[in-house]
Amino acid sequence: MHQVKIKSPATVANLVCGFDILGMALTEPFDIMQLRLLDEPKVIIHNKDSFGLPTDPEKNVAGVVLLSIIEQMNQKIGFEVEIEKHIKPGSGLGSSAASAAGAAVAANFLLQHIFSTDDMIRFAMNGEKLASGVKHADNIAPCISGAVSLIRSIYPLDIISIPAPDLFVTAVHPQIEVKTSDARQILKKQILLKDAIKQWGNIAGLVTGLLKNDHNLIGRSLEDVIIEPVRSILIPGFDEVKRKCREVGALGGGISGSGPSVFMLSEDEVTARDLEQVMKDVYDKIGVEYNTYVTTINKNGVEVMNDE
Amino acid sequence: MHQVKIKSPATVANLVCGFDILGMALTEPFDIMQLRLLDEPKVIIHNKDSFGLPTDPEKNVAGVVLLSIIEQMNQKIGFEVEIEKHIKPGSGLGSSAASAAGAAVAANFLLQHIFSTDDMIRFAMNGEKLASGVKHADNIAPCISGAVSLIRSIYPLDIISIPAPDLFVTAVHPQIEVKTSDARQILKKQILLKDAIKQWGNIAGLVTGLLKNDHNLIGRSLEDVIIEPVRSILIPGFDEVKRKCREVGALGGGISGSGPSVFMLSEDEVTARDLEQVMKDVYDKIGVEYNTYVTTINKNGVEVMNDE
Repeated sequence: MHQVKIKSPATVANLVCGFDILGMALTEPFDIMQLRLLDEPKVIIHNKDSFGLPTDPEKNVAGVVLLSIIEQMNQKIGFEVEIEKHIKPGSGLGSSAASAAGAAVAANFLLQHIFSTDDMIRFAMNGEKLASGVKHADNIAPCISGAVSLIRSIYPLDIISIPAPDLFVTAVHPQIEVKTSDARQILKKQILLKDAIKQWGNIAGLVTGLLKNDHNLIGRSLEDVIIEPVRSILIPGFDEVKRKCREVGALGGGISGSGPSVFMLSEDEVTARDLEQVMKDVYDKIGVEYNTYVTTINKNGVEVMNDE
Repeated sequence: MHQVKIKSPATVANLVCGFDILGMALTEPFDIMQLRLLDEPKVIIHNKDSFGLPTDPEKNVAGVVLLSIIEQMNQKIGFEVEIEKHIKPGSGLGSSAASAAGAAVAANFLLQHIFSTDDMIRFAMNGEKLASGVKHADNIAPCISGAVSLIRSIYPLDIISIPAPDLFVTAVHPQIEVKTSDARQILKKQILLKDAIKQWGNIAGLVTGLLKNDHNLIGRSLEDVIIEPVRSILIPGFDEVKRKCREVGALGGGISGSGPSVFMLSEDEVTARDLEQVMKDVYDKIGVEYNTYVTTINKNGVEVMNDE
């Protein structure tokens, strides 16, 4: 096998109360990546989309991941990669993680699965470091493994897979720019203990709800009293979308990653479509361009489409 | 049925990283309470122990719980209660919760189960309010239901039962006084966001470990970076007990409630006994009187012993 084609899904990091520790994979949108093994230590990148992402491997998210794998292998290998990106950069839907995780999984496939999932996460985090300045795994881990990932710790790496219930996800990406670095900067360094206690009650509730497949408990626990009140200020229409989505039957939801995308969970497709309409109405009224997605929680993570 | 005898177990609140939200029931020690139905609205209390607890129902934890039940019933009923306390008041092992929860469950039994678990928790919280000034449920809920309870929220009351694995618990009660009010007062009102994130990773890990029966994950997650570093200062020998217990094979543990008792979890009875020896050695060396307990996680909560 010298070539592999994979699809690498969008992800929702900072899963409401689970800031920095919980991420979830989506069935759509996803990037398509084709990776070919070379016999010399270099990385060649072709972007098959119109986002104008760099092709210099040192400046490309997938590139730095592949370079770190080449360095680790200490053999005469390289990679040629074709990236067809459908997850918009800057959407808050894990676009960089899809490139990074997709590159790591595809390379591991071509290298006959010599790396563990944790190894792949470590390689892929180099891509996140390039994209946002910080090594974080709450997009990468669910992108690779599907469903929900708990990042208990980065140093040492301790990632736990949590099964995901059959829920629908409706997401809206209002076409405004929220830089991850800005979204980090406005957070307070100190928080109230009483808010933290409320948050960890919700985190424990959310995790229990996911593990027990208790949709009502998931809904009650989807509340973020610390990050969302600060960050939602950067997203026009957020409060209205959230309130109206709850009224229409969403279990709950919040900011995807550091925004600007907003997502909502629901139990059936009819409700998921109603939520989409709510989102469209709000952003039509405000006059902000947007994309919407009606999808499900992805339980598989990066998938091989074919191999030759 | 006009009379019932119950045993009401000790509990560990503030389960390491789960400050204010997670509590766990123990098989031993437990109080024994005998409750008799009267036909006039009054509460008579007999203490069959040497702790000198008040017999005035307004000043007694079980008393205020029973008074609140009488008030709610709006009928000509009352209770005579005999309390044989084995859980030392002030030990941090849920002594007041055992009285409060035991009274609520026993009364509900005599009233032919008219109250739900949530009702009983609400009544019993009146006892905690008397004992510590605060309505909290992280001792009461596991005392009533057994295993581990997640208190996601008090207002509105939202309590979730979490199954407990077959683990051993070793606890030591050094005979020093730590007032719950003092232990609350030394906590900082503000905490660092980065510490909170670490804590909620551990909470999610602990809950996942309990639900998946993953002992290793439970052990890795039994870490409290916020409360323990502050409160452990009030408990002589704490750091040494903890370090040595980990060395001897404890999964982990921490302060029980607001102290001064310290507990450790382990996978087998031999280790649990070794941990007891570690605790004895430390407190013998320091020269502080103590009691130790080697027990298991109680899966049943308050139990009826017999009824007439």
